[in-house]
Amino acid sequence: MALQRTYLDWNATAPLSEAARLAMVEAFSLPGNASSVHAEGRAARAAVEKARRQVATLVGADPAHVTFTSGATEASNHVLSPDYRMGRAPVSISHLYASAIEHPAIREGGRFVAEQITEVPVTPAGIVDLAALEALLAKHDPASGLPMVAVMLVNNETGIVQPVAEVAALAHKYRGLMVVDAVQAAGRLSLDINTLDADFLIISSHKIGGPKGVGALISRGEVLMPKPLIRGGGQEKGHRSGTENFHAIIGFGAAAQVMSEDLESRNALIGAFRDRLEQAMIQAAPDMVIHGVTGARVANTSFFTLPGMKAETGQIAFDLEGIALSAGSACSSGKVGQSHVLTAMGLDTDVGGLRISLGPETTEIDMERAIAAFEKIARRRKVSGQAA
Amino acid sequence: MALQRTYLDWNATAPLSEAARLAMVEAFSLPGNASSVHAEGRAARAAVEKARRQVATLVGADPAHVTFTSGATEASNHVLSPDYRMGRAPVSISHLYASAIEHPAIREGGRFVAEQITEVPVTPAGIVDLAALEALLAKHDPASGLPMVAVMLVNNETGIVQPVAEVAALAHKYRGLMVVDAVQAAGRLSLDINTLDADFLIISSHKIGGPKGVGALISRGEVLMPKPLIRGGGQEKGHRSGTENFHAIIGFGAAAQVMSEDLESRNALIGAFRDRLEQAMIQAAPDMVIHGVTGARVANTSFFTLPGMKAETGQIAFDLEGIALSAGSACSSGKVGQSHVLTAMGLDTDVGGLRISLGPETTEIDMERAIAAFEKIARRRKVSGQAA
Repeated sequence: MALQRTYLDWNATAPLSEAARLAMVEAFSLPGNASSVHAEGRAARAAVEKARRQVATLVGADPAHVTFTSGATEASNHVLSPDYRMGRAPVSISHLYASAIEHPAIREGGRFVAEQITEVPVTPAGIVDLAALEALLAKHDPASGLPMVAVMLVNNETGIVQPVAEVAALAHKYRGLMVVDAVQAAGRLSLDINTLDADFLIISSHKIGGPKGVGALISRGEVLMPKPLIRGGGQEKGHRSGTENFHAIIGFGAAAQVMSEDLESRNALIGAFRDRLEQAMIQAAPDMVIHGVTGARVANTSFFTLPGMKAETGQIAFDLEGIALSAGSACSSGKVGQSHVLTAMGLDTDVGGLRISLGPETTEIDMERAIAAFEKIARRRKVSGQAA
Repeated sequence: MALQRTYLDWNATAPLSEAARLAMVEAFSLPGNASSVHAEGRAARAAVEKARRQVATLVGADPAHVTFTSGATEASNHVLSPDYRMGRAPVSISHLYASAIEHPAIREGGRFVAEQITEVPVTPAGIVDLAALEALLAKHDPASGLPMVAVMLVNNETGIVQPVAEVAALAHKYRGLMVVDAVQAAGRLSLDINTLDADFLIISSHKIGGPKGVGALISRGEVLMPKPLIRGGGQEKGHRSGTENFHAIIGFGAAAQVMSEDLESRNALIGAFRDRLEQAMIQAAPDMVIHGVTGARVANTSFFTLPGMKAETGQIAFDLEGIALSAGSACSSGKVGQSHVLTAMGLDTDVGGLRISLGPETTEIDMERAIAAFEKIARRRKVSGQAA
């Protein structure tokens, strides 16, 4: 195995950023429980509230509307609930309409039961089918409860940007709630909860250079809120109990602040690397297919199929060359399954796809090594006669 | 305010231990998602599994039975569920019997509704009333589903040790499940899930010198398990989805290992400090009441009432003297409410109690400063005529 490694799996998890690391190490000396009233507790509280403002800024929200969770998966299970409260009055959500390309944390449907969940198809271009969504919402029975629509802003496998504001307009036309998984969008697109017209946004710290174990559910207001998922001491205004994850929240805030700045120049650099990589790959293997290349994609992601090379095999081959990339998403404990995203796009899921995802620390050398590895692997594929 | 601080609120949260800090900082350089299959992912996976073994060792469990959660509150909400599975077959738990002195994370009852929860009283000595529990269990209707009993091993406010093995025997006599909140017991008592006869144990990293944001639900077997609380990518064998909280889990493991060693000598030192502190306090204020002093207490905790000095006022007075302690537990965002533990013990809850809790880094100087502060505060109380 190569001693020098090239990490191109930033959509699975971003290495801890220097800003987050420094903020956390500094905070390690503070012993406080942010809910204690003594000086140590108040210092921890102040740090948590600073991080709350930093996270709010990243998504154009009011800090009062940021609820820290243990990550995006918990936030999804929290927000995807049939039981809401408008102040003290119960509000019932009777059905979840989630796109076919959502992350498993959304697709599983949180606290909805299977019969309450309908999948919204996507077009062959990998974009949520607005006409199909409207047809579903038109059939929704408002007497049973409100509809909820969940569509991610950026797909984690393809990087394709979804028309969330248009989806939200449809959701609201039918008096529904709009939930946006913005996990892969944060730090890659300019985010504003109001412009997106979302009722709830979900973001994750470890996808933007913060530590794992923390994320946020961000609401547009604070009147209509889901029934808490985790009850106990009443932290986070009663929305999420459990001792505040102090050090991780501080790291999350620091990472969010970095990501709020220099978005365009960061994207320009990352996009140039990604485009050069894709050009070199097509030159080396003209039969390869890059998914979503015709539509709007974030700058850091390339999802491709190399005919005759199963994604699982390809991933191992790259790993042996010192390149970390992934075959679809990284959940389910190392299980490499079919890509539900390719299936939803109506594509061949037997071969599968490989995802390269770049980050702000990706270098020129990483690109050279990735291109060399790709050329070698694509050549070997031909030699072994698996493809034309 | 004093520049030098003395932190005596270890039951609220322990400062990050050196071992946990070093392990985390070292792991900060690993970018991996523990569910990725490339080299970086496998390195993260190996580190997570090492931590799982360290945590299992602390409680005498099989590492395969440790489910990492975001903390004890999530673990409580996870285990306190009416919906269990025995393999694939559903098992219904119809009622929760929880002691009156449980932490709010247990008292709120997780996924049980209010009508499914009955409080088990404690004796004036602060110990769960076994006769009352048996009377309740004898009335339980097994046709409705199994009973579940939740009793903590060590109370967080008083430090009083509960007769968990006897409670478990009762729970099992009535074919029930036994859940033990061992959050305040971990690192303070020798723990063995089999000796305790518990079906589930809950522990928290940040109470034993690990980072916040991680805890564990530990089961005695793996056949009978609660329905997942957080669904998505299927991590933790499907019991708890969400990207593994890699760095925090490593810190938790390191802290657990430290706590597995030298328990007796640690307790001897801490207990000697605590006893000297209590003797000095009684000498300065002979009318003070130390709760639970007659029974079995862990070595690090002292919970007392100073007549004529409201706990809230006392806490502020100590804070101004540079001493961090607490009035009961530290949850609910700085709210200082009545102690439900004192209420359950039938004691005066108007004045309330102050809790001093020590840790392995507590020093001689901390004790001198705490005694000096106590003497000053107790004297002032008399001067102001609030007490005899």
